[in-house]
Amino acid sequence: MSRYLLTAALPALALLVAQPALAADAAQMEANKKTVAAFYDAVLNQKDFDAASKYLGPRYTQHNPGAADGPEGLKGFVNFLKEKFPNNRSEIKRIFADGDYVIVHVHAVREPGTRGNAIIDIFKLENGKVVEHWDVVQPMPEKPANDNGMF
Amino acid sequence: MSRYLLTAALPALALLVAQPALAADAAQMEANKKTVAAFYDAVLNQKDFDAASKYLGPRYTQHNPGAADGPEGLKGFVNFLKEKFPNNRSEIKRIFADGDYVIVHVHAVREPGTRGNAIIDIFKLENGKVVEHWDVVQPMPEKPANDNGMF
Repeated sequence: MSRYLLTAALPALALLVAQPALAADAAQMEANKKTVAAFYDAVLNQKDFDAASKYLGPRYTQHNPGAADGPEGLKGFVNFLKEKFPNNRSEIKRIFADGDYVIVHVHAVREPGTRGNAIIDIFKLENGKVVEHWDVVQPMPEKPANDNGMF
Repeated sequence: MSRYLLTAALPALALLVAQPALAADAAQMEANKKTVAAFYDAVLNQKDFDAASKYLGPRYTQHNPGAADGPEGLKGFVNFLKEKFPNNRSEIKRIFADGDYVIVHVHAVREPGTRGNAIIDIFKLENGKVVEHWDVVQPMPEKPANDNGMF
């Protein structure tokens, strides 16, 4: 019996070593998705830099070519949005996570009643905090070549 | 000894039931990344619809608003590219997977020597084959507001 259990236990114990990393990764990626969704809402919908900064790490490396770098750049963007487009609504349609990255597919409407932009953002997180941002932005066309919509 | 091993083995055996799904998912997601990278290269760089269609499922639901729907729409796009932009080069800078989706962050240059476009594509896969596509495309600006680049 003990020999049988030893034989049975060894591969299971090997899994104990190999698999918790996957489970921990999965839990961290779910947490990262929640962090990015809350951060996104604070920046684009609440337009509240203080609320957003709770989710920020020690840096915010900005790759959006229209935005200044760093947390100060983000603060400037939030204030610009609050002043010029107070009714901006950005709705996350899909959210993905892979490793330290979270990706969101977003419909952003700066002025109610306009078609708005399709956006995909990529965020990098370190220790559960947002530290880097890339995005691609495209105005939604009036007459698409197919009936499937951009989302 | 056998009592000790039984105690040690039970949580490990429980993991054997709970974790293989995660491991199988991880392996499928890695396979999906390879499929999308090969599909992307066949469409954008080789411009070879027959090579690309090996990776296609029974449908190709197109959300790019400039492209016609379905495998036939993709064939038309590949032929357009081959004829009008034979030197197009699309380089995948980052690739992510989450569940049935693969996301690529791409620098696409249709004419050598031009700045090109930043693109993020999302592909959905079913049974390891590409069945749906969304993207967002943005021309790279001449004078970005930060020094970090778009990638």
